[in-house]
Amino acid sequence: MAYNVTQKLIKEHLISGQMTPGEEIGLKIDQTLTQDATGTMVMLELEAMGLDYAKTEVSAQYVDHNLIQEDSKNPDDHLFLESAAQRFGLYFSRPGNGVSHPVHMQRLAKPGKTLLGSDSHTCANGAMGMLAMGAGGIDVAMAIAGEPFYVKMPEVWGIKLEGKLPDWVSAKDVILELLRRYDVKGGVGKVIEYYGPGLDNLTADDRHVIANMGAELGATGTVFPSDKEIKRYLKSQQREEDWVEILADDGAAYDIEETINLSELEPLIAKPSSPGNVVPVKEIAGEPIYQSYIGSSANPSYRDFAMAAEIVKGKQVAHGVSFDINPSSRQMLTDLVTHGHMASLLPSGARLHQAGCNGCIGMGQAPATGRNSLRTTPRNFPGRSGTKEDSVFLCSPETAAASALYGKLTDPRTLEMEYPNIKDLDNPTVDVTLLEKPKLPEEAKEIDLQKGPNIASIPEMGELPDEMELPILLKMGDNISTDEILAGGARVLPYRSNLPEISKFTFEIVDESYYDRAMGVKDDGGHAVVGGYNYGQGSSREHAALAPRYLGLRVAIVQDFARIHWQNLVNFGVLPLTFSTSDEADKIEQGDVLQFSGLRNEIQQGQEVTAKIKGKNKEVKLRHTLSPRQVDMMLKGGLINWVRDRETA
Amino acid sequence: MAYNVTQKLIKEHLISGQMTPGEEIGLKIDQTLTQDATGTMVMLELEAMGLDYAKTEVSAQYVDHNLIQEDSKNPDDHLFLESAAQRFGLYFSRPGNGVSHPVHMQRLAKPGKTLLGSDSHTCANGAMGMLAMGAGGIDVAMAIAGEPFYVKMPEVWGIKLEGKLPDWVSAKDVILELLRRYDVKGGVGKVIEYYGPGLDNLTADDRHVIANMGAELGATGTVFPSDKEIKRYLKSQQREEDWVEILADDGAAYDIEETINLSELEPLIAKPSSPGNVVPVKEIAGEPIYQSYIGSSANPSYRDFAMAAEIVKGKQVAHGVSFDINPSSRQMLTDLVTHGHMASLLPSGARLHQAGCNGCIGMGQAPATGRNSLRTTPRNFPGRSGTKEDSVFLCSPETAAASALYGKLTDPRTLEMEYPNIKDLDNPTVDVTLLEKPKLPEEAKEIDLQKGPNIASIPEMGELPDEMELPILLKMGDNISTDEILAGGARVLPYRSNLPEISKFTFEIVDESYYDRAMGVKDDGGHAVVGGYNYGQGSSREHAALAPRYLGLRVAIVQDFARIHWQNLVNFGVLPLTFSTSDEADKIEQGDVLQFSGLRNEIQQGQEVTAKIKGKNKEVKLRHTLSPRQVDMMLKGGLINWVRDRETA
Repeated sequence: MAYNVTQKLIKEHLISGQMTPGEEIGLKIDQTLTQDATGTMVMLELEAMGLDYAKTEVSAQYVDHNLIQEDSKNPDDHLFLESAAQRFGLYFSRPGNGVSHPVHMQRLAKPGKTLLGSDSHTCANGAMGMLAMGAGGIDVAMAIAGEPFYVKMPEVWGIKLEGKLPDWVSAKDVILELLRRYDVKGGVGKVIEYYGPGLDNLTADDRHVIANMGAELGATGTVFPSDKEIKRYLKSQQREEDWVEILADDGAAYDIEETINLSELEPLIAKPSSPGNVVPVKEIAGEPIYQSYIGSSANPSYRDFAMAAEIVKGKQVAHGVSFDINPSSRQMLTDLVTHGHMASLLPSGARLHQAGCNGCIGMGQAPATGRNSLRTTPRNFPGRSGTKEDSVFLCSPETAAASALYGKLTDPRTLEMEYPNIKDLDNPTVDVTLLEKPKLPEEAKEIDLQKGPNIASIPEMGELPDEMELPILLKMGDNISTDEILAGGARVLPYRSNLPEISKFTFEIVDESYYDRAMGVKDDGGHAVVGGYNYGQGSSREHAALAPRYLGLRVAIVQDFARIHWQNLVNFGVLPLTFSTSDEADKIEQGDVLQFSGLRNEIQQGQEVTAKIKGKNKEVKLRHTLSPRQVDMMLKGGLINWVRDRETA
Repeated sequence: MAYNVTQKLIKEHLISGQMTPGEEIGLKIDQTLTQDATGTMVMLELEAMGLDYAKTEVSAQYVDHNLIQEDSKNPDDHLFLESAAQRFGLYFSRPGNGVSHPVHMQRLAKPGKTLLGSDSHTCANGAMGMLAMGAGGIDVAMAIAGEPFYVKMPEVWGIKLEGKLPDWVSAKDVILELLRRYDVKGGVGKVIEYYGPGLDNLTADDRHVIANMGAELGATGTVFPSDKEIKRYLKSQQREEDWVEILADDGAAYDIEETINLSELEPLIAKPSSPGNVVPVKEIAGEPIYQSYIGSSANPSYRDFAMAAEIVKGKQVAHGVSFDINPSSRQMLTDLVTHGHMASLLPSGARLHQAGCNGCIGMGQAPATGRNSLRTTPRNFPGRSGTKEDSVFLCSPETAAASALYGKLTDPRTLEMEYPNIKDLDNPTVDVTLLEKPKLPEEAKEIDLQKGPNIASIPEMGELPDEMELPILLKMGDNISTDEILAGGARVLPYRSNLPEISKFTFEIVDESYYDRAMGVKDDGGHAVVGGYNYGQGSSREHAALAPRYLGLRVAIVQDFARIHWQNLVNFGVLPLTFSTSDEADKIEQGDVLQFSGLRNEIQQGQEVTAKIKGKNKEVKLRHTLSPRQVDMMLKGGLINWVRDRETA
């Protein structure tokens, strides 16, 4: 049978399930990537699991999100992450080394491997002939512990590239073209695989741009073949030995077929406030701009910055334009300096920032209220820039730099200059000064985790008791979101590596007395909550399950669950139950005490669970939909305990 | 008579008073400098004064403190400041252009001139043969409006420099030596003037380092002569025509005499947590370090960064050291790039930050809890780094770079390398791309102030009524600080350009009901407060007078005032009164209503003021100590009204 590249990668890593689109498959994970914003909790999970040493081939912990260090929380987190990386056998990329995705590509990515990362743009390394996917923190913790990653077998969306990009049109315009055609949900349930003669003119870095923003299409992943260009790239990074060729078989088919003729593309731009809101630049040229921002993992390469430098060389940006240069990696920044491009950028009026994610995730460089900001970043959701009333456009470095010169949105094809044909460097800087290698297992055992005052281990959480008496602390209505369960925002986020502290905000929006009441019965066996339809909708944040679990939540009973929150409850050992019929809910009230008896046996034997209402001579009929694997996990008290039992067995 | 340089500068600018140390003198101000953290309120004050156009020779508004832009407040402030600079005829230095003091020195400082700045390190430009002083925001607003600056005639502390600095010892060690000898109050009431043959070996930039940290000695200012070296410096900055020679007369005397033999100095370091806590580096060499930080206005020059670059060239910083490079100006950064030093710094492991104040004022780069941070910045007060439990050392770039290489505190004289003899560049970059020139007066009139949602004009505040009935809303004890009157910190500071919002925090620590009660009587004539001894101690912040005034505070009656807060109350039109005898205070209680009658005449005629207590048939005897100038100002409702009346007369 003829396979495409995606199918080859999946087949090679298949541990369970069938390769039928929509069916759950379990995949072996070779490499993982965590960044600091999600990584602290992943490391605390590894600690709670009792992991001795990473079971992956390569796992790397990057520090790229929280680099501002306004107080001790960021730097204390960095030290904790470094010590955890050393303890568990991970690479550690220090603050200032750059954004995870380009650094991983430069130094660690390997064709033919799977990569799971706790960052939604992990897919960028699909450029390297890898199956690279973003996931939640606990999924990545599991992968580091050697567990498979479970995902629905995707459809493979084959996109044939033909032709060659015209001057002034670049990789960003390719992915913007797809977003123009299919909008932000066009890739859901699919892996996007690129092939065809057009690939010959796209460098590895160009492919990174395209793979990165596959996330904006909602795709499970993006896959490029590992061809001669990847060999050239790896050779330039002094890693030619890591190359293997991975091409689609002759006659390989795709579930969906699509063609893009690169020769026909023109400069595109996503208008506020969605990456899918794409039009040709020429249609809105002339709009005044306030900021032009070059950087992020969506345009991270030497070529992208050198192009901007060549456009502004010997000129000055228009009066009033903030021309923000956010280098994506220190290795690349060194090349910009040594090859003269920084000497073009700075005198043009550029404002040079530290290497990292920075404004791409709202950490600095927020635009002024209502002013137009052009960015080469991947997302322009409202407020993501940090400014509530923002107006962010997404475009190529060519469009951003041309617009900076004129102070208005400018199609780079209208520049009166020769097209600067930037070539990749044959011998780019290779810099591992701030990329620490993993400790050897025997050294790793000696490392103590460095926990600053704001970092708290995940406390021990017990297995599911057979008999429970649980007061119902909340009875809520429909559509309770994870924001209502545990808010995000600047007030709450600094405590994400401190479960006891962050749990104080749990259900605060629903009922301020919840925390105190939960703490009051925590040591007496915990409590239950009751909700309506679509319980746990919204953000996928794991803390919305972990924090109430920490406060003693053992059972959540609702009409139905939002999918991801249900999964999170299971992972953290909260039994998710639904009413057997909707009017069962009428039997119970906030304050009632539910009595469960023989529960462990009950959930193993079938899907029905019965609870008595204490002192009321009534019963409620409930159901669960856990798989046998999940029942096993639930009995042990959640995923962390489940893995720990295996580690210590 | 033979004058020293300081006396010459003062004599040339003397408007009122006698040049007798300790007597108040009024000085004509030629130049002003404001930065963004203090400048927004200065600009709002200029607006409230109805200023048409700056009356100084040069006034410059810099943006260097609040560069992070986590949300719209910083960038909205930047736009407001730009529009205000254009409206009032000021230079505007855009975000990313660098720290005010070095940029001012490069582009605008002029020997023989006075410079007043709303930043305590304004004294740095004393390096240029100027009388440069830091002051409060309203003082600088007054200077821009053409008013004299009133200050006590300082003693002149003449420091004779002999010899030549040994290799590995630099300007920072000179000022640390003075701090070692005299600690942080050694310069109070004095201008420090350097002279002697040792000057021949100190560049203009070296002198900037020394003058900058005169602030840490508490000095009113630091003065260097304008000699051939200043001529050379100005020529290199393409401003030779701005040079005039200003030397002390032969036989000039100093109020205090001191000698430093540069040849005998060695590398010094200020230990936590005071700039006066100075010891030789060799005494504490070997202490492990976590961070090495090069930058700030205390070591801002090409030489300072190039020295660090030469020390780390071809090497790598020790494992675990955060080597933070904070360029002080974009012009200098360009030189570091084009002359190859950035290509030495980056591969050594440096983390390059944007040009600005950054971590020097706690805006980023905070160290981890309890870890040793070496910095070339001027201050190491506890918590100033942003980290509560910090451990910050102050040292030269040589000591910081040497220590970065070894990961422990290292005397640079122990480095096994030849001393890198860095010379100033003959032709440094001169870059005015981000330094906007003032608008011409006729253009300026057309400019509208750009006020984002968080910027509010200072409301009109009426003159002092002749008859008042004022309820006493608070009766407080002794030692009430300005922190209790209006707190600082991250919760309050973002509203410093928004008087209505920031006033909501007034006296919150003393009595949470104050704000509501004050608002309740605001339109009925306002209110009074009563305090004890040392009222208004602590921080000099003007908002602690302005915010209660906005809420209707007309009279503050206490046993005695802290000096600066008293001045601030006068400036903003709150009548400061003391009890004629201490037991007068016993007559009145919180809630009493004071009746003032014929008050305007009373404060003009003498120092006594009498108030009746409504419904109690009692009187309290009070006093004021306003000068005739201040009485005039008080009658008009404060300094802003006083200036506005002159502007519109």
